[in-house]
Amino acid sequence: MRMIKWQNGVVITPDQTKLPLEEITLQITTVDQMCEAIKVLRIRGAPLLGAAAAFGIALKAYHSKATNTKRLLVELEAAATSIKATRPTAVNLFWAADRVINKARSFQGGKIEELKTLVISEAQKIADEDAAQNHAIGKNGATLVKDGDTILTHCNAGELCAVEYGTALGVVRAAWEQGKKIKVFADETRPLLQGARLTAWELMRDGIPVTLITDNMAAHIMSKGLVNLVVVGADRVVQDAVFNKIGTYGVAVLAKEHKIPFYVAAPKSTFDLAHKAAEITVEERKPEEVTHIAGKQIAPSGVSVFNPAFDATPLQFVTGIICEDGIYCKADFAKFKSGRS
Amino acid sequence: MRMIKWQNGVVITPDQTKLPLEEITLQITTVDQMCEAIKVLRIRGAPLLGAAAAFGIALKAYHSKATNTKRLLVELEAAATSIKATRPTAVNLFWAADRVINKARSFQGGKIEELKTLVISEAQKIADEDAAQNHAIGKNGATLVKDGDTILTHCNAGELCAVEYGTALGVVRAAWEQGKKIKVFADETRPLLQGARLTAWELMRDGIPVTLITDNMAAHIMSKGLVNLVVVGADRVVQDAVFNKIGTYGVAVLAKEHKIPFYVAAPKSTFDLAHKAAEITVEERKPEEVTHIAGKQIAPSGVSVFNPAFDATPLQFVTGIICEDGIYCKADFAKFKSGRS
Repeated sequence: MRMIKWQNGVVITPDQTKLPLEEITLQITTVDQMCEAIKVLRIRGAPLLGAAAAFGIALKAYHSKATNTKRLLVELEAAATSIKATRPTAVNLFWAADRVINKARSFQGGKIEELKTLVISEAQKIADEDAAQNHAIGKNGATLVKDGDTILTHCNAGELCAVEYGTALGVVRAAWEQGKKIKVFADETRPLLQGARLTAWELMRDGIPVTLITDNMAAHIMSKGLVNLVVVGADRVVQDAVFNKIGTYGVAVLAKEHKIPFYVAAPKSTFDLAHKAAEITVEERKPEEVTHIAGKQIAPSGVSVFNPAFDATPLQFVTGIICEDGIYCKADFAKFKSGRS
Repeated sequence: MRMIKWQNGVVITPDQTKLPLEEITLQITTVDQMCEAIKVLRIRGAPLLGAAAAFGIALKAYHSKATNTKRLLVELEAAATSIKATRPTAVNLFWAADRVINKARSFQGGKIEELKTLVISEAQKIADEDAAQNHAIGKNGATLVKDGDTILTHCNAGELCAVEYGTALGVVRAAWEQGKKIKVFADETRPLLQGARLTAWELMRDGIPVTLITDNMAAHIMSKGLVNLVVVGADRVVQDAVFNKIGTYGVAVLAKEHKIPFYVAAPKSTFDLAHKAAEITVEERKPEEVTHIAGKQIAPSGVSVFNPAFDATPLQFVTGIICEDGIYCKADFAKFKSGRS
């Protein structure tokens, strides 16, 4: 199912803050609306953010009143700047916005309608490519999944984080579609509960067995031999680490202690091999995400809170990275330092 | 501050399910009320449960209409059976109930009022001893805390889990009272948020710096070098492991990976060296504790949930156990198998 669609100047996508209790479809027509949707996580997940960024610029192209291509390009660049300022960690946002802008800058013709069409079709291409990549990731990853396996996942690296099919949950889906009898444990993923709200919801919708746990139960189920495989997504893969939702690093340490393979599923668009972990800004979000749940206060007023949205899992904890063009293993990680993959 | 008090046939204690938003004092006068309070966690924490069990039997003694000591003993034994059926994991509950009943059984006189007084004073003695033990644990543990340390704790092993002062937070308090400039990170401790609700509340009340994190942030703060020491409580110490709130074992694995000392603070009444971890029943609680927070649904209706209340941390992950009579280290653990401590 397509999680983000372009329909004559309207971007259509589910409001992920409302799931699982309400299934509300957003109809986004302006860059401001797109930025708001990204900031408050109505749209989230690295691959989906790439498509959202591209479609955000496409919205500007479609609705622009500019009368010449030079003026339109200035508007598109302003749109890209706004979108790139929404959230700092997922590289797809920057990558997709830059790709659309570079395409627009490379435009040689003079007709403004042609430039508009070029921008919109580049955004659509990014979305289509992402969908295809997720299916390829699923197919590659499914080779690692044995009949009867129980897979632990963290956060939501599912259809809801991607244009279609999902990354980590793409692996789960592909194995399930091959007839493998598998089960999933979903970490609820505090503070924003993407595991409880989104992963549980989309797996239940597809009839794939899922059991919800709180994040701090992962060690216990591993020690009881209830987990064979961990698969998570990624927000950014750098030379020496994988950035993903806060809590991922902890799961990786636990997997190592219990000798359980720990895989990351992510498209190459998530790779940023020009950087090391120490160079990446980790988004810190507001304390209310921790002190309040679903609008209810659960901690003392005025308590000090630390709320990083992501953590870095050093590559030595990663068994492999499942991409659209294959599975990268320890030997490949050594090459990452030179910017190659 | 005394967390549980006996006042002429009434047990007075805070309702911990209402904290931190409401400070409500329970006045318990019957065994049924005491059992309900324990079951729904109005009263919780291993040492406090010991005192609560003892005072629960004392309530029966105080209010009994029995006309002879034999009849009263039957009633006291029935009360103990009800109290021991409330929750399966914390050993203090069983230990304290048995101690009061054994005291009653040993009664040689004939006057019913003397038996009543004996039972009530034994319960009071258990509470007083626990208070004294917590102060001793604090003093012993404070020798491990250096000026400037940041201590991570999980769940609430504070004044609210004990009759007075606290176990893990007793260590924090003692170090703070010695003038050491320390800080605490409190894991929120899903599902029931004892860290967010209780630990944060009591440390803020006492002016001790505390920062709240979600459970899955512990690995991140350790990797950033922000934690020097982990101190947690215990619900039961057996020959080969420490049972404590779910998530404790995960913190222990993370501490090992980051070479951070991991201490358990617990009175000897928590020791049950007659058993091994594999023999202990771990309480599984209802799914709604995971799917709902503060009455709000946060997961899809009907989702499968696993909700164990405790986990077992094998002793090889434990640097030491801080008790009222000293700190037990690796060499002492070897003796636990023979039932000695």
